[in-house]
Amino acid sequence: MSKTVTGPEIERLIQLLAKLPGLGPRSARRAALHLIKKKDQLLAPLTRAMGEALEKVQLCDICGNVDTSSPCTICSDPRRDKSIIVVVEDVADLWALERAAVINGSYHVLGGVLSPLDGIGPEDLAISSLVGRVGNANSPVKEIIIAVNATVEGQTTAHYITDQLEGIEVKITRLAHGVPVGGELDYLDEGTLVAAIKSRSGF
Amino acid sequence: MSKTVTGPEIERLIQLLAKLPGLGPRSARRAALHLIKKKDQLLAPLTRAMGEALEKVQLCDICGNVDTSSPCTICSDPRRDKSIIVVVEDVADLWALERAAVINGSYHVLGGVLSPLDGIGPEDLAISSLVGRVGNANSPVKEIIIAVNATVEGQTTAHYITDQLEGIEVKITRLAHGVPVGGELDYLDEGTLVAAIKSRSGF
Repeated sequence: MSKTVTGPEIERLIQLLAKLPGLGPRSARRAALHLIKKKDQLLAPLTRAMGEALEKVQLCDICGNVDTSSPCTICSDPRRDKSIIVVVEDVADLWALERAAVINGSYHVLGGVLSPLDGIGPEDLAISSLVGRVGNANSPVKEIIIAVNATVEGQTTAHYITDQLEGIEVKITRLAHGVPVGGELDYLDEGTLVAAIKSRSGF
Repeated sequence: MSKTVTGPEIERLIQLLAKLPGLGPRSARRAALHLIKKKDQLLAPLTRAMGEALEKVQLCDICGNVDTSSPCTICSDPRRDKSIIVVVEDVADLWALERAAVINGSYHVLGGVLSPLDGIGPEDLAISSLVGRVGNANSPVKEIIIAVNATVEGQTTAHYITDQLEGIEVKITRLAHGVPVGGELDYLDEGTLVAAIKSRSGF
């Protein structure tokens, strides 16, 4: 720890800010100073916004999304196609797909991926609740799109989920691999190039 | 603006977090999600810490330091050498010098540097209050160390301050230029190397 220069209040603020992803000890100090300098424009409204989030934000009991109501806005929206569930690792991925406005289905947030090295097993993820959503007799679900990251852990998790859903009549799909839109071939790894060639399509 | 995926509370939290230095829109989303996921471990204590800062933190009337009291801990410390004032651009610089524990004097925070392009003139900086601290008849100040950044604006500001202090009997010094400790010559600019050679010393 560095020498304490300021009062304990400011030190504590810096220490807590440093726990945010993307902020280290140095940038947390800068952020704390910025907050203190902009008391009225930033510190006060941010404190209020965090207080509101603390009070109101919760996890959706159905899909695991983060929202101010449970079921969340997406799960309780009648215009959403309940026959499709998009399975994602994290709420951030759900947000990314929603920003792309690419699909009007519902979601299921796993809360991570299988990772034996980190001690994360199936019981740590929302897999049994997914099976429960799909497996009951009057489930509307026709398709499960497994939209996990294209990492080893993600793909392992995808396979595990596919195994768990065996015997349930539901279509299971996964995201296409290929060249990212705007991507340059020169910068892509060989695995992506192989996938892009294999899945090539006509004009 | 991106499409609103979440409730207005979360969107507002993300927008405010994005105003922190070091956090962009994407990392602000990640930070907001992290806060929401760690409600008890992080969101609640950080909200409290910010509320405390909001309530208690203020600027020192003498030196411009940020603290929970005015005069600040440094200005009111009798063990501090009041004959030396270290002039810095920003509170962050004061903190950096205090962490280095390099000098036991007092400080004066300018609150920036002269920058005509940004519309920052002498009246926007705490320069007249510095002259006031040094200029009065029973001032204990014997030396002013101008510890501004080694930028063009910093050096311009240093010269301006020196001009303003003309006629007052006080020693004015500035930081040494040279090779940073641990620095590699290969990575240094020519100006630094010239300064390091010119100010070379015996072993």
